Amino acid sequence: MGGFAWVTLATNDSYSLGALVLAHSLKQSATNHQLAVLVTPGVTKSMRVKLGSVFDVVQEVNILDSKDESNLRLLKRPELGVTFTKLHCWRLTQFEKCVFLDADTLVLKNCDELFERDEFSAAPDVGWPDCFNSGVFVYRPSVETYDKLVQFALEKGSFDGGDQGLLNLYFNDWAHKDISKHLPFIYNMCSTACYSYLPAFKQYGSNVKIVHFISSTKPWLQYFDTESRQVQPAGDMHHLKSVLQCWWDIFCSLIHPNLTSDMAGLAGAF
Amino acid sequence: MGGFAWVTLATNDSYSLGALVLAHSLKQSATNHQLAVLVTPGVTKSMRVKLGSVFDVVQEVNILDSKDESNLRLLKRPELGVTFTKLHCWRLTQFEKCVFLDADTLVLKNCDELFERDEFSAAPDVGWPDCFNSGVFVYRPSVETYDKLVQFALEKGSFDGGDQGLLNLYFNDWAHKDISKHLPFIYNMCSTACYSYLPAFKQYGSNVKIVHFISSTKPWLQYFDTESRQVQPAGDMHHLKSVLQCWWDIFCSLIHPNLTSDMAGLAGAF
Ligand SMILES: O=c1ccn([C@@H]2O[C@H](COP(=O)(O)OP(=O)(O)O)[C@@H](O)[C@H]2O)c(=O)[nH]1
Ligand SMILES: O=c1ccn([C@@H]2O[C@H](COP(=O)(O)OP(=O)(O)O)[C@@H](O)[C@H]2O)c(=O)[nH]1
Ligand SMILES: [Mn+2]
Ligand SMILES: [Mn+2]
Repeated sequence: MGGFAWVTLATNDSYSLGALVLAHSLKQSATNHQLAVLVTPGVTKSMRVKLGSVFDVVQEVNILDSKDESNLRLLKRPELGVTFTKLHCWRLTQFEKCVFLDADTLVLKNCDELFERDEFSAAPDVGWPDCFNSGVFVYRPSVETYDKLVQFALEKGSFDGGDQGLLNLYFNDWAHKDISKHLPFIYNMCSTACYSYLPAFKQYGSNVKIVHFISSTKPWLQYFDTESRQVQPAGDMHHLKSVLQCWWDIFCSLIHPNLTSDMAGLAGAF
Repeated sequence: MGGFAWVTLATNDSYSLGALVLAHSLKQSATNHQLAVLVTPGVTKSMRVKLGSVFDVVQEVNILDSKDESNLRLLKRPELGVTFTKLHCWRLTQFEKCVFLDADTLVLKNCDELFERDEFSAAPDVGWPDCFNSGVFVYRPSVETYDKLVQFALEKGSFDGGDQGLLNLYFNDWAHKDISKHLPFIYNMCSTACYSYLPAFKQYGSNVKIVHFISSTKPWLQYFDTESRQVQPAGDMHHLKSVLQCWWDIFCSLIHPNLTSDMAGLAGAF
């Protein structure tokens, strides 16, 4: 086995919309690599079919397996559920190296050079920049690493209750050991940066390759005018209008026409 | 000449209060190194006397010198004034190596190990973390570097109109070249981090050695109850109450008793 893949995750049909737009943005960037999405039982059958039309691999995770000791132990810790789900990406051992992308990211330019990096590479977080943001990272699938991460999660937990707090405790030498593991911020530009340091956004924004719509800045939560087909971002998010418009253009042309009423959440509502 | 020094800057009596508290916090940390403050004509005589009682060096800068070509050229670009002022720190060539600290920082623990670092070392900024924050940095005084910086300022300017935008353009390989030049965030914890990523602050906050009260979070702008002698920080800043109380304890015990009515700005108002 071998090869490189972009990997994302969706636990429901709403986040699947993000995953679909992300996948199309990767194709538009003319990537040479495969696309994989991890789904949980919360994603409907009809959405999986849609995902299968653009992703090379649609992998169900969180299926309970009584022979898997780690899973059994996690069953007793339901609060670690979402954190655990992202960890499944290490089990895609059919690939040699992967880049994980949150479903709320959008690829603006070809980023295939990311596969030249090693595990564990990520970009700094805007909240506490000696932590990395876990929305974009380079990793090497390995059942051994997966098992260690699960073990670690059970023993130490996560300081923020999510995968970011867990992964930062596990890969705890990221901040100060090896500069090559610091992905440039243009590979994970957190959307809030456009207003928290606007002059830097104006200076460096045109270099951005991947935008990450963190917390409440999700593209699908912005107001979209169906008449004009223009997104109308709230408040300071207007600095990201052109990028949000990109997201909606993909959504309207390639995804919305194929949504069906048996999909759930936001996807069923459109 | 030689030796190491902590260097700060005050262009008026209000910022001088910050400089004074900072100096006392450095002394409380039992530093082995000297303290220097750059002042401009906007600092009153009586405040300079006060500064001189705690700083080893009180250096007036921005004095026009017709023999200094750089200064003459800057005269025609008044908008670069504040940026230019911080650059003067490179002229303190009586010291071999220095750490610049904004007057709105507070030292909580001994940080003398910072002098083992080389120029140009700084911690990531929370706004755009591939930029460093210019509130704390290690540098090597040098008239040559000073001249180059002034030249650069005149040619390229600053993308944010301040010293941070200028220094980031000048030391533009900081983000990706040498991990040893990335100061840990605990040497320049921007105060907004305590609410923008509270779980990380709870996890790592007790390691913080220098707090930086950026933008409107200045200690002297927080409400202080003169009856109880307790600071009452607004909103999310309550997570930094103990650190703000430190600032005010130094201010009340060591600085306020010696303020006089011929001081200007906030200092004269107390
Ligand atoms: O209900 C959820 C929440 C999260 N996710 C996945 O986990 C990632 C991380 O969550 P999110 O992006 O919302 O967190 P943020 O980046 O805002 O911290 C998402 O992008 C999705 O890939 C998901 O599938 N379902
Ligand atoms: O009117 C001013 C503004 C700034 N400063 C000095 O320049 C530093 C940078 O400004 P500030 O800390 O206000 O900027 P911030 O850290 O909030 O970006 C201050 O700490 C002071 O040392 C000053 O002396 N007078
Ligand atoms: Mn995300
Ligand atoms: Mn400052």
